[in-house]
Amino acid sequence: MKKGIFITFEGTDGCGKTTVLEGVRKKLAINGHADDVLFTREPGGSKISEQIRNIILDKNNVEEDERTEALLYAASRRQHLVDIVLKALKENKIVISDRYVDSSLVYQGYARGIGIDEVLKINEFAIDGLFPDLTILLDLDPKIGMERIKNNRKDKADRLDNEELSFHQKVYEGYQIIEKRYKNRIYKVDASRSVEQVIDDAFLKIISFIKMYE
Amino acid sequence: MKKGIFITFEGTDGCGKTTVLEGVRKKLAINGHADDVLFTREPGGSKISEQIRNIILDKNNVEEDERTEALLYAASRRQHLVDIVLKALKENKIVISDRYVDSSLVYQGYARGIGIDEVLKINEFAIDGLFPDLTILLDLDPKIGMERIKNNRKDKADRLDNEELSFHQKVYEGYQIIEKRYKNRIYKVDASRSVEQVIDDAFLKIISFIKMYE
Repeated sequence: MKKGIFITFEGTDGCGKTTVLEGVRKKLAINGHADDVLFTREPGGSKISEQIRNIILDKNNVEEDERTEALLYAASRRQHLVDIVLKALKENKIVISDRYVDSSLVYQGYARGIGIDEVLKINEFAIDGLFPDLTILLDLDPKIGMERIKNNRKDKADRLDNEELSFHQKVYEGYQIIEKRYKNRIYKVDASRSVEQVIDDAFLKIISFIKMYE
Repeated sequence: MKKGIFITFEGTDGCGKTTVLEGVRKKLAINGHADDVLFTREPGGSKISEQIRNIILDKNNVEEDERTEALLYAASRRQHLVDIVLKALKENKIVISDRYVDSSLVYQGYARGIGIDEVLKINEFAIDGLFPDLTILLDLDPKIGMERIKNNRKDKADRLDNEELSFHQKVYEGYQIIEKRYKNRIYKVDASRSVEQVIDDAFLKIISFIKMYE
């Protein structure tokens, strides 16, 4: 039987996930959750998962088919789950992951046009029932997100960052669809506010969620 | 609309596939099918497909999860299909592939115990409807097959060749199940006979199948 608590963070590119996660980490530590929380993101230190991600992000792989990409993301997710997430959950930890299955449903399924249900099929195979207990969705107009990316990430643009704004608009729409589908699991946070407000909102939701399990 | 004819060869390790395929190739060439036939096998010269296979076959990846492996095979299959098979079929060629989707159903689905229907799900995603028109199944007791492997392949053993005979027995059982499921598509060839007889049997089936399309 699964123990522990599995929480994921989702959102369009530039929504501030990295900053918010760091803020939540600090607040959890102050409130007695330093050692029982594991922060991770795919590939997250899983060697095989990292090898797979290298193929996906290789700028030379321009001929990579969209379904190949979706299968590789699912494979990388599976191995990260086995190597990192499941081990920590078995130790009764709170695992907080920067992106997980919803990212594939939205990016490959909706924005790339393969279909949410099609991509869900291969991800159900990959996660074998392990949906998150709680998902924090940082909700931000992708126009603002793309401006942030342009200002902050000029030095490390990869293949995915070269997409058009129209793609990120589709990602945004995809998250709205996913939020309606999994409304019991997904908690939407207005990420247009100050970073302190966004961190507080996410942190308070998480801490009250953890208390339900205690 | 798909053009061309798509034929696959399947069988347990050591069933003689390589030798039979070479014999069939020669006979097809003599009978006027030299330039309109493409022989391939995954990864088959697809660069991304090859990168994926390298991860699967890396002997250092001992911690690779079975579902990760199945997803990687499906990803490699997808890219090989797009880069090699679909291009040739569009040119109205006869494509003959050494292994395809049935190998995953049998090896990962049945022999590794994930489940045939589970593995079928991710492969349906990968092949997007492109099942073979005809599959030649070389039927041979795995005990004989394993003897052949031991005698012939001592110099190039990889991770898969280190499996026990019991695994290959399960592979054999899996092919029997798959043959019953897809009996309209799969043609079973008794591979315990002389190599000439086996080649003749496979060749005659293929040539009569091709004539149906002409």
